[in-house]
Amino acid sequence: MAKSLFNELMAALCCLPGVGPKSSQRMAFHLIERDRQGAAKLAATIASSLDKIGHCSLCRNFSENDICHICSNVRRDSKVICVVESPADMLAVEQAADYRGLYFVLMGKLSPLDGIGPQELGLNLLESRLESGGIVELILATNPTVEGEATAYFISSLAQKHQISVTRIAHGVPLGGELEYVDSGTLSRAFSGRLKL
Amino acid sequence: MAKSLFNELMAALCCLPGVGPKSSQRMAFHLIERDRQGAAKLAATIASSLDKIGHCSLCRNFSENDICHICSNVRRDSKVICVVESPADMLAVEQAADYRGLYFVLMGKLSPLDGIGPQELGLNLLESRLESGGIVELILATNPTVEGEATAYFISSLAQKHQISVTRIAHGVPLGGELEYVDSGTLSRAFSGRLKL
Repeated sequence: MAKSLFNELMAALCCLPGVGPKSSQRMAFHLIERDRQGAAKLAATIASSLDKIGHCSLCRNFSENDICHICSNVRRDSKVICVVESPADMLAVEQAADYRGLYFVLMGKLSPLDGIGPQELGLNLLESRLESGGIVELILATNPTVEGEATAYFISSLAQKHQISVTRIAHGVPLGGELEYVDSGTLSRAFSGRLKL
Repeated sequence: MAKSLFNELMAALCCLPGVGPKSSQRMAFHLIERDRQGAAKLAATIASSLDKIGHCSLCRNFSENDICHICSNVRRDSKVICVVESPADMLAVEQAADYRGLYFVLMGKLSPLDGIGPQELGLNLLESRLESGGIVELILATNPTVEGEATAYFISSLAQKHQISVTRIAHGVPLGGELEYVDSGTLSRAFSGRLKL
């Protein structure tokens, strides 16, 4: 057993989310024993990703280029901006909804106790995009948590200052969900947000 | 979103055991967004592990050096060899039992259909160790599967040819197991392997 280096590999794998001592051991054995090619590829890809992936200077999302492939896509509707908390949220919207506008990725949410204010979320960047004109609607798709709601409220007041229409995505009973098992907060949101048929 | 490179990173992470599209996405975001330092360390450690970790020329276990730290430890009992299927099995024995002898790691088990014969398991290496003398006992700790049993049987006949005492680790009801829930194969092994008190 290559005690030191193997243990180092196990410890390094523990930095992955959801990986503890047991699974890091399994992964380390797998990489060294069965998939050396995949391991070499993994090491190279992580290194080049760290080197090349930065932030899009328009939407703050991860990008290899200065402007990401969504912001630079001329076939997307540049009059609508959807605000999300993280790149993962953006991916989820891309995969699920037939949204054709642009995005703004906050990379977090307002959380004064953790020292995350408007500056850290790049809201000055968002404001300059709103000021530059041409934006008709701002869709707020932050998560329905306390911080997410506070962030949405803050951004909505920002947009109203510039006379831009602001909308919030709907919250209610999820499809396939049963009323009996839905929590009371969601149910009360579903009632207060009811639509006329 | 750095479409191509980020997707490549996700695909590369999928080579890890137990990692599918969803968790690879979570891992990729974590590495790029929150733990760039850990990611850099991970890439470097994988690369150096691939470069430096080879096999011990005595026991076939992974090792950075020609002879691993167990085989080169003079305080271990070099008269006893424990045969295990994989380095993970060896680690389990090291952590659980107060075994002070040496090991021989097969890196697999006899499986003629998959083209794994005695040669692939390095049994010629084991035989030359048995021939060189000084070995008093060979403990077979292969898994209690069909292939593991066949491998144990093959190795035991090899050792008997050299008049070396061969033992097999005990199989039976695990500690904390309840007879009611133990499978019939295990129970019949527990009965046939019963010891006099």
